[in-house]
Amino acid sequence: MGPAGIGGRVEGLHAVAAALEAGRVRSLTVEEGRSRRSPLAEMIAAHPGVPVTVVEDVRPLSVTTAPQGVVADCRPIAALDLAALVGAEEVPAILAIDHVEDPHNLGAMARTAMAAGVRSLVVPDRRGAPLDAAAFKAAAGALEHARISVVSSIAEAVVRLGKLGVWSVGLDADGDRELFGLDLLTQPVVIVVGGETGLHRLVRDRVDVVASIPMADSAESLNASVAASLACYELFRLRRG
Amino acid sequence: MGPAGIGGRVEGLHAVAAALEAGRVRSLTVEEGRSRRSPLAEMIAAHPGVPVTVVEDVRPLSVTTAPQGVVADCRPIAALDLAALVGAEEVPAILAIDHVEDPHNLGAMARTAMAAGVRSLVVPDRRGAPLDAAAFKAAAGALEHARISVVSSIAEAVVRLGKLGVWSVGLDADGDRELFGLDLLTQPVVIVVGGETGLHRLVRDRVDVVASIPMADSAESLNASVAASLACYELFRLRRG
Repeated sequence: MGPAGIGGRVEGLHAVAAALEAGRVRSLTVEEGRSRRSPLAEMIAAHPGVPVTVVEDVRPLSVTTAPQGVVADCRPIAALDLAALVGAEEVPAILAIDHVEDPHNLGAMARTAMAAGVRSLVVPDRRGAPLDAAAFKAAAGALEHARISVVSSIAEAVVRLGKLGVWSVGLDADGDRELFGLDLLTQPVVIVVGGETGLHRLVRDRVDVVASIPMADSAESLNASVAASLACYELFRLRRG
Repeated sequence: MGPAGIGGRVEGLHAVAAALEAGRVRSLTVEEGRSRRSPLAEMIAAHPGVPVTVVEDVRPLSVTTAPQGVVADCRPIAALDLAALVGAEEVPAILAIDHVEDPHNLGAMARTAMAAGVRSLVVPDRRGAPLDAAAFKAAAGALEHARISVVSSIAEAVVRLGKLGVWSVGLDADGDRELFGLDLLTQPVVIVVGGETGLHRLVRDRVDVVASIPMADSAESLNASVAASLACYELFRLRRG
């Protein structure tokens, strides 16, 4: 997760606004001029306890390429163990994200998962993009509302979740079943998504079902982030009935 | 669309492979060493009529940040007029993309649209990202299979499509109707998506229905590309029955 911990550094208007709302911001650095303009000015005014440093240009201090004039130093989000994720909901809905290299993809997945009511995320501590400032920016604030578990192996996490009564559905273009209408999604479930190359073999061998998203033409393909979005929304739809 | 026309420049393994398959590549420039490695070597071998220049580093020649060792100069894809899009299918399914600034988002939308069987795209000639090498790379080859119309105004295109018998559904977080289960999607239809700030007022006033994607919590939001993906897949799902 980097030395700053999960969400220790947050950049960009939406992401910083959400971190302020969550009460995590220790201090803000904003660009001269920007601090007098809304919506940043409104954000700052609404949180008078947060110290603000004004600089000429935040970009030399920023990790992302477009910090939109604001960088926040934050109290990191505490990671939870898998049992805590499972205990947090009557019918757990979890998204496990393996091997996704691009932090924007990771943040985008988190954003859609939250919109679809999938509020628990499992991410690996290696072999994947970290939940860094770029991921928080792409998530546009959604990561502030996530329950996050960081594990050394997604394959092992699937096994441990199974022992805690959670079914597992892996997404892969070569799935045995079609994802749409999959009843298992109404049960306590973890959806596992891999990177562009699909599910890792070790994960594939351990999930209860490997499901694929149907396509109009088998020559086409889906981005991992889109596949995760469609899966989280299928869960949302099936649970709404 | 830039001086090279639509798809005049294609970079990256998947996108170049698809352009080769489509017979559009005039010449390839590949990196030394890479030309001897598969899958690039296989691609080249399968298209012996395409001249190949080997260079030490393609990056100084490339438009995208990660050309994966290959850059293709291509015969541009011919844009079609709206009547041609409508005439191409018994029940037209069209995605109109207004005001999307990021070519990666544009390419990602095209990729998912094709997977969902929505093969006709309408894009503006200004006020939005061009269908450039970055968009083609993000589309991972899918843009080779698209029918593309370039218009000066999406709002006007909606009106003209209406006269051609095509209903229009605009996506917006403040929609009047829920997108899921929307019967109109089984009719000849254009789905209109705006950028992160939602539908432009002029477009909103002209579409037959403004529909929104339901969310578990109204505090959340969806990326425009994800919203477009969910809408194209809803059309696919409803048409499959």
